[in-house]
Amino acid sequence: MEQHERSELWLVPPLFTDLYEFTMLEAYHALGMAENAVFSLFVRTLPRNRNFLLACGIDDLLAQIESLRFLDEDIAYLNSLGTFSKDFLGWLGSFRFTGDIYAMPEGSPVFAQEPVLEVIAPIGEAQLIETLVINQVGFQTLIASKAARIVEAAQGRRIVDFGSRRAQGIDAAVKGARAAYIAGVAATSNAEAGKRYAIPVAGTVAHSFIQAFSSEKEAFRKFARQFPDTTLLVDTYDTLAGVKAVIALADELGADFRVRAVRLDSGNLLELSCSTRQLLDAAGLTHVQILVSGALNEDKIGNLIRAGASIDAFGVGTDLSVSSDAPALDIAYKLTEYAGLGRMKLSAGKRSLPGRKQVYRHLEGGVAVGDTMARFGERCPGRALLEPVMIAGRRVGTPLELTDIRARTASMIAELPQHLRSLQAASPPYPVTLSSGLLAYDQEIYRLVTQQDTSEGRK
Amino acid sequence: MEQHERSELWLVPPLFTDLYEFTMLEAYHALGMAENAVFSLFVRTLPRNRNFLLACGIDDLLAQIESLRFLDEDIAYLNSLGTFSKDFLGWLGSFRFTGDIYAMPEGSPVFAQEPVLEVIAPIGEAQLIETLVINQVGFQTLIASKAARIVEAAQGRRIVDFGSRRAQGIDAAVKGARAAYIAGVAATSNAEAGKRYAIPVAGTVAHSFIQAFSSEKEAFRKFARQFPDTTLLVDTYDTLAGVKAVIALADELGADFRVRAVRLDSGNLLELSCSTRQLLDAAGLTHVQILVSGALNEDKIGNLIRAGASIDAFGVGTDLSVSSDAPALDIAYKLTEYAGLGRMKLSAGKRSLPGRKQVYRHLEGGVAVGDTMARFGERCPGRALLEPVMIAGRRVGTPLELTDIRARTASMIAELPQHLRSLQAASPPYPVTLSSGLLAYDQEIYRLVTQQDTSEGRK
Repeated sequence: MEQHERSELWLVPPLFTDLYEFTMLEAYHALGMAENAVFSLFVRTLPRNRNFLLACGIDDLLAQIESLRFLDEDIAYLNSLGTFSKDFLGWLGSFRFTGDIYAMPEGSPVFAQEPVLEVIAPIGEAQLIETLVINQVGFQTLIASKAARIVEAAQGRRIVDFGSRRAQGIDAAVKGARAAYIAGVAATSNAEAGKRYAIPVAGTVAHSFIQAFSSEKEAFRKFARQFPDTTLLVDTYDTLAGVKAVIALADELGADFRVRAVRLDSGNLLELSCSTRQLLDAAGLTHVQILVSGALNEDKIGNLIRAGASIDAFGVGTDLSVSSDAPALDIAYKLTEYAGLGRMKLSAGKRSLPGRKQVYRHLEGGVAVGDTMARFGERCPGRALLEPVMIAGRRVGTPLELTDIRARTASMIAELPQHLRSLQAASPPYPVTLSSGLLAYDQEIYRLVTQQDTSEGRK
Repeated sequence: MEQHERSELWLVPPLFTDLYEFTMLEAYHALGMAENAVFSLFVRTLPRNRNFLLACGIDDLLAQIESLRFLDEDIAYLNSLGTFSKDFLGWLGSFRFTGDIYAMPEGSPVFAQEPVLEVIAPIGEAQLIETLVINQVGFQTLIASKAARIVEAAQGRRIVDFGSRRAQGIDAAVKGARAAYIAGVAATSNAEAGKRYAIPVAGTVAHSFIQAFSSEKEAFRKFARQFPDTTLLVDTYDTLAGVKAVIALADELGADFRVRAVRLDSGNLLELSCSTRQLLDAAGLTHVQILVSGALNEDKIGNLIRAGASIDAFGVGTDLSVSSDAPALDIAYKLTEYAGLGRMKLSAGKRSLPGRKQVYRHLEGGVAVGDTMARFGERCPGRALLEPVMIAGRRVGTPLELTDIRARTASMIAELPQHLRSLQAASPPYPVTLSSGLLAYDQEIYRLVTQQDTSEGRK
């Protein structure tokens, strides 16, 4: 049994998977089926009003897969279920993922049906990691994609992630902060995310702090003495009276007044922000910024800006942290090849494309004009998006700094045609076509699958 | 530095909190403000179409609070931010939560504004755990409440949680499985949830397994040889052809055929389930059950049952695991008392009730007819819902087995008036009233707060 650092142990409990992955793994093990499979992770259809997604969560996933080990306690649990053989459970103790993974660079705009990543590994291994792959890449992709909309709506104003308390659990809050930062959010309130990922952290003060003092101004005075460069929350009782208390404190402190911003968390943010700006400016506090929060999302932010609100930064919580308008992706991880032969399912509405793939992005004058999905190895023009990120179970290369991933993401979003950055469904959608090689292979495998299935046992 | 078991380490990273909780903790520490505060966790308004919520997640929360410690690596991170004093960081190394917590029993139906739990602790301690309390209890309450709807819709048929892959991260998948089980879901596919919480686990086989064989029937044959009492997935290529392949396998195996169920995962589940039932029955396989899955939720399940679908069990994924129609609660953790004096905020739309509270549920003939929110210690008729669960930082009593929490939950749901169990908004809603003592205290504190705030610094 190996020792892990505490921070590594946060990565993944090895039993975090659907039980049937173990069942299938045992069947493959017992049947001696160990040839390579290709599994492809893709989103079937984009959520409403999304014109693209941002591929995200891959680096965390790779760290988890690389360190995947079953410890005695895990095997003892599986044994307690009474359905797995001793032979299989003994073998599981030495299980390691030995396969290859190709993936889009984190932060890449990705479209429906395009592989975000492909796993090439002995079939049982590739199958076993299914639940983890979908869960982890699906979630960070979901949040990065939502965050990109919020950043777009803010037109250069700072967005701070305030979503930890409303996120769906601890993993979601911490990894959601990462995904949001990659998509352009400026900072997070979550200290664990700051520690784990070196994301800038930000925070102000809660209403409860104000309430604990005999008056709002006394609370401001005490807090600003402790943290001079702070943001003061002004809406606990009455927003504009709170702003006046800040101004009174500035009069009192003179040159010692270093408060950077005030925060408004309720009420009519358009009117209150403008009135706050007027009061601050009239008092000579033109450098004090205005941060607003409270049930914000991309639509409300866009409306506030268009209406002329006087706001420097937005704290966004719930709607960012759970992607409220689309809290899940229609994301799937499907077998497309086994033992060198393409595979597809024909289930109603869920037909999949066979074989290992590559995605090519075509740029004209620096603008992405269309993608082509091709067979892997087929020569196509354009930039190949799927890159090797794990070979024989080991990560390839050095992971980028998060700030570099963030910068690369911004540049890839900037390559998209302007109309795709709309918060509504764009017309026309971004063109994704199939290469001639992939089309021909799809037809070939379709014939084969339908022939096979009528040839054995079907009536 | 203490050693932790791996399974405990999964509970909480100590820095999982909003940065401002540390900022406020330092301010309280520096100002010597250590008198007891009361914080109340409550949902401001119920999500659309919810007539009640199920309080959940409290046991996990208590374990996390009891074991909350800051390790050297945590303190080193906070130090790296450059805003906290050495004195404070040194003190943080010996931080322990020493307060009391009163909470509703897990699985209790709870209504808007009612405290799900109350924390009574030195103000900095009670403040520090805010993010964790909201996140953990909010999420499990969200999922338990969603699961109760799905269980209700299924009218006694088994629900299996298939949501792990679409859940928002690892913590959400595992704790969501717990919450769903408490609310009446029969089993989960998640092996980690099975191990950690002793929830029954269930699983079948994926399309990829079927596709890896030369024919569907060959896949069935091999899988049933390995796992005779299994469920076979029949919709990889053509559902009814898949059912016929199962029947052919039954003919082939004779008395050795022990397959328990078939699973349908796509297509028109009403028509296909009825046709499947007819085919199975005609072949003498009346004991083979039908499990369906594929983008199900309470509305679709209700429609299928009302339309006469022939279904024994439902696998439910995404809509359960993220509570799609309401992916977050409007849940808040608010200061209601400090140093013996009630506190309230007056922010627009967010006014809170002052003081420590108790909730009384009134039953007539075994049916809950209304709740009263009262001041703590005020005598009221009815069953008091908030019970001590932590005293001086230590949990009280022995945690119940999950099966017992689940049974208690079912009995508490059964106490609700029938019309509240509707999946639409019930009219009239469940009556929650304020006691005369609480009303009078609210007015008293309101006068005090508004006087204070005009008395100091406000214009």
